[in-house]
Amino acid sequence: MDYRAPTRDMRFVLTELLDYQAVTDLPAFSEVSDDLVAAVLEEAARFTGNVLAPLNKTGDQEGCRWKDGEVTTPKGFVDAYAQYVENGWNSLPCPPEYDGQGLPASLATAVQEMLNAANMSFALGPLLTAGAIEAINNHGSDAQKTTYLPKLVSGEWTGTMNLTEPQAGSDLAQVRSRAQREGDHYLVQGQKIFITWGEHDCTENIIHLVLARTPDAPPGVKGISLFIVPKFLVNRDGSLGKRNDVRCVSIEHKLGIHGSPTCTMAYGDEGGAVGYLVGEEGKGLAYMFTMMNEARHKVGLQGLAIADRAYQQALWYASDRIQGKPLVRKDEEKSIIGHPDVRRLLMTMKSGAEAMRALAYYAAYHMDLAHHHGDDAERRRSQARVDLLIPIVKGWSTELGVELASLGVQVHGGMGFVEETGAAQHYRDARITTIYEGTTAIQANDLIGRKTHRDQGAAMKALVAEFRDDQRSLEQAGGDLAGMAEPLGRALDALEQAAAYVANTHGEEPADTAAASVPYLMLAGFAAGGALMARSAVKAAEAMKAGDSDAAFYEAKIISARFYADHLLPRAVASLPAVQGGGRWTNALTVEQFRHQ
Amino acid sequence: MDYRAPTRDMRFVLTELLDYQAVTDLPAFSEVSDDLVAAVLEEAARFTGNVLAPLNKTGDQEGCRWKDGEVTTPKGFVDAYAQYVENGWNSLPCPPEYDGQGLPASLATAVQEMLNAANMSFALGPLLTAGAIEAINNHGSDAQKTTYLPKLVSGEWTGTMNLTEPQAGSDLAQVRSRAQREGDHYLVQGQKIFITWGEHDCTENIIHLVLARTPDAPPGVKGISLFIVPKFLVNRDGSLGKRNDVRCVSIEHKLGIHGSPTCTMAYGDEGGAVGYLVGEEGKGLAYMFTMMNEARHKVGLQGLAIADRAYQQALWYASDRIQGKPLVRKDEEKSIIGHPDVRRLLMTMKSGAEAMRALAYYAAYHMDLAHHHGDDAERRRSQARVDLLIPIVKGWSTELGVELASLGVQVHGGMGFVEETGAAQHYRDARITTIYEGTTAIQANDLIGRKTHRDQGAAMKALVAEFRDDQRSLEQAGGDLAGMAEPLGRALDALEQAAAYVANTHGEEPADTAAASVPYLMLAGFAAGGALMARSAVKAAEAMKAGDSDAAFYEAKIISARFYADHLLPRAVASLPAVQGGGRWTNALTVEQFRHQ
Repeated sequence: MDYRAPTRDMRFVLTELLDYQAVTDLPAFSEVSDDLVAAVLEEAARFTGNVLAPLNKTGDQEGCRWKDGEVTTPKGFVDAYAQYVENGWNSLPCPPEYDGQGLPASLATAVQEMLNAANMSFALGPLLTAGAIEAINNHGSDAQKTTYLPKLVSGEWTGTMNLTEPQAGSDLAQVRSRAQREGDHYLVQGQKIFITWGEHDCTENIIHLVLARTPDAPPGVKGISLFIVPKFLVNRDGSLGKRNDVRCVSIEHKLGIHGSPTCTMAYGDEGGAVGYLVGEEGKGLAYMFTMMNEARHKVGLQGLAIADRAYQQALWYASDRIQGKPLVRKDEEKSIIGHPDVRRLLMTMKSGAEAMRALAYYAAYHMDLAHHHGDDAERRRSQARVDLLIPIVKGWSTELGVELASLGVQVHGGMGFVEETGAAQHYRDARITTIYEGTTAIQANDLIGRKTHRDQGAAMKALVAEFRDDQRSLEQAGGDLAGMAEPLGRALDALEQAAAYVANTHGEEPADTAAASVPYLMLAGFAAGGALMARSAVKAAEAMKAGDSDAAFYEAKIISARFYADHLLPRAVASLPAVQGGGRWTNALTVEQFRHQ
Repeated sequence: MDYRAPTRDMRFVLTELLDYQAVTDLPAFSEVSDDLVAAVLEEAARFTGNVLAPLNKTGDQEGCRWKDGEVTTPKGFVDAYAQYVENGWNSLPCPPEYDGQGLPASLATAVQEMLNAANMSFALGPLLTAGAIEAINNHGSDAQKTTYLPKLVSGEWTGTMNLTEPQAGSDLAQVRSRAQREGDHYLVQGQKIFITWGEHDCTENIIHLVLARTPDAPPGVKGISLFIVPKFLVNRDGSLGKRNDVRCVSIEHKLGIHGSPTCTMAYGDEGGAVGYLVGEEGKGLAYMFTMMNEARHKVGLQGLAIADRAYQQALWYASDRIQGKPLVRKDEEKSIIGHPDVRRLLMTMKSGAEAMRALAYYAAYHMDLAHHHGDDAERRRSQARVDLLIPIVKGWSTELGVELASLGVQVHGGMGFVEETGAAQHYRDARITTIYEGTTAIQANDLIGRKTHRDQGAAMKALVAEFRDDQRSLEQAGGDLAGMAEPLGRALDALEQAAAYVANTHGEEPADTAAASVPYLMLAGFAAGGALMARSAVKAAEAMKAGDSDAAFYEAKIISARFYADHLLPRAVASLPAVQGGGRWTNALTVEQFRHQ
């Protein structure tokens, strides 16, 4: 089943839903225009549709192979990766100082969605490389930047993030890997697990970023430093030198993303891997956090991407499969898309994906403003918005993505359970997204603590205030749109109450707030998605009124928003009792009572 | 990971929640006592825990193998099946006339839950055999009963259901397989797909029940007849005769239930498979429907079973894994079960499974009354209750089961995505349950048409009236329980409104009612589950008041019910806008608009 990037909706979100002129007016993006946006999207759609998408299923079936420390990616990946580098896709949002194209994060976000929808396993390589670029660019020395960034930016080398160890997953304070200084470098020893693209055959070098402890470091997070550990050391002239003492000792047998090698990496089995300290000792975790926003945003995008891919697969099947008597548009539709419940499944996927897209791009738009706006207060305002939204984009979009990929299976009936059909792959692949880059609970913990309690809910209040404008726009628009105002208003009421609960309890009753955290995050996601769908509908109605020729698209957007208001938005209100119930029932059982059944 | 059947909760539901004396008082069950119930449950727990459960993971990893028409089940299945037969598990609920033990359906339901939780792939064999027994017992001739039932009842032979063909899935009117009369039998020709346990190595014979058309039959469902097609013909003396002209030509490569062979069966490639007409020509589909209640109930149980298995796996992991600082009972709990969100996941699984168990057993209880009560009016009343509940048990429990199995993965974090851990298997296995034996949409279609519209909502009104008593009991109980009364009341209000919408629109606006059907089914499931959890809490409070020694269990039950009221029950109300929105937005888009993105 092919993938065709939803460029029309991407353009709609970027240049019609968002006030995109605020981005293109920024000096950093003086060359960006609506035409450029459209051109990049079309070009990316061609590449992802023609080159990456066809490798998704074969990559799943074939998987990666490990032998004697070498990893072979599925057939076609090496060549596709070469094209990816050659066409400049990797450098799109990267800093121009290191040969990046410096395009807006918001535009890169759309391309990122395409890469992940076309082939999530493939896209994970560049996703990790981007993290390495971010870490080195923000915290590395000039020499490190000069040595590593150009080839990471071009994609000629890839990067990895080595955080997890068997005893240190969500809790990185438990990291045990060690790094001992030796002259101008360190010798790194330890084992890292779940290292995405830790070893592969697509590039000649791999730049590992590794968390480890120096010998006299304090325990806990403050003793952790960040090191650059290249697979091959890099000579002064940029040529590759000695093979470093790091090996991939095995890869995981996973539920999904079979095309992405998940590696166990052994550092220093032969005495110590040469590593170079990034920034200062003891600040490794802080450095990691600065790049987490972006990585979490991208994993949130994966939730959206896999949902849209599953939608396209389901839509294709539903338009092709003939079974039973259609009830809708009986004369024109012979296939099962004439069955209302098939439509309900497809509409849930479609409207859910559109809401996730609106929210993720909206967050990326504020990233651009936060990084490049000339006014300090504007930058801060946008950064606060980004900080608030990241855990919601990551948590909500991945949870919803898993659910929508499952609906894609359902559209196929029995064929959905047969692996050859392809729907099941999305269901399997999607399942990792709520786990890596911080589980949904970790996102929710961030949302209740740093993002809601710390400012006593101010950032959330500002967001809700903005969404109240959308509610008012619906009321003023009248007609079909007015019917959304009340459900949106109730969702926003619930969001306010939930945020207040969190702000009030967090300090004093942390176990209650923690119990409420994921329901609060999901509430916020469904409400924010609803507000942006409402805004989309208002913009669509305006475009239709102005006589835009693309009336069919705008009409569909309004219908999609109305569907969302009936089918998805009510979940926001439904989450409130779980928030306000706090930990009262969640935290009550003894372990023995959990077992006694 | 082991499986230990939740016998305490099973006993609670059967003998404390339900008015079980109404069953044990029936003459058919004069030998059934609370002690017998407990003894059967413990014995079944031993068998399923010791024999079947250990084969679940190995069966998944090894899968079934096809070679030259023969199917080899995973290692250990043949021996386990022999023990299953030898211990008499297959005959438990079967009619005593054919050496069955004639125990209540409600008790057999608990055993069925265990079989499926321990090993769903294995349990599918007996599940299909039970369907064949039902079909032959209800509609076969005396000779057919004598020939086939004793060995099907003992389990020495298995049975299959051959309905689906490539063009005939949900729509059986499209069946093309043919049967031509020849003397005292028919010659059957055609291809059937998705035939569960269609071929295997556990028994010496397999009795296929096959839907096919006679040559001059009318088109559509009225032209379909049901045939017995044994793999080996059976001689007069009961010994096996000639191999019949039926072959398994391939098995499917599936997302889950790898231990269950899903077969493509070819009938009559060498001229015609010998088949024996069941009952009259043209009534095949009607006969199938009479046994569907039971099969659908059992698949609903699979949703519950897989959720409980996933719960046990997750609970084990959560009690074992140490990571981060627990917030709950910090002093006694070192593992991640001290993290509120892990508890939230576990409580969602636990309370969800308990609600599903209560509803499924409640339906089975009414099956017993419907079959065996001395009073005709009572029988009819219970049968109406069963008919109403079956699509809800099947649809709601499987949809919820998929979701809870997914939560089980989440509890494991990254380890959940690694196949070796075992959590992923439940996520994969669960996914079939919303599809086979009629998709959720097919269940919902049954619920809105035959079960709600036909009697103008009378059966649903009677059910809600019964649940209003539970609401009142909560109010009277006061304390913690009273807090559930209002959310339950709102859920029941929503259920009444939804049923009224369906009853009113079904005839005139079938596409609207169909669009509302699954949300209505899910609403009914969450509301009914909530009512039975409320009743459970009231019974538990009574037992505690009476000084029952098992206070920890009863306290946990009350907490579980309260958790359900905050976390799951609100979804009933949240489904109402989707019901009342009907098809307005669901059915509005053209196919082109679905694609235009």
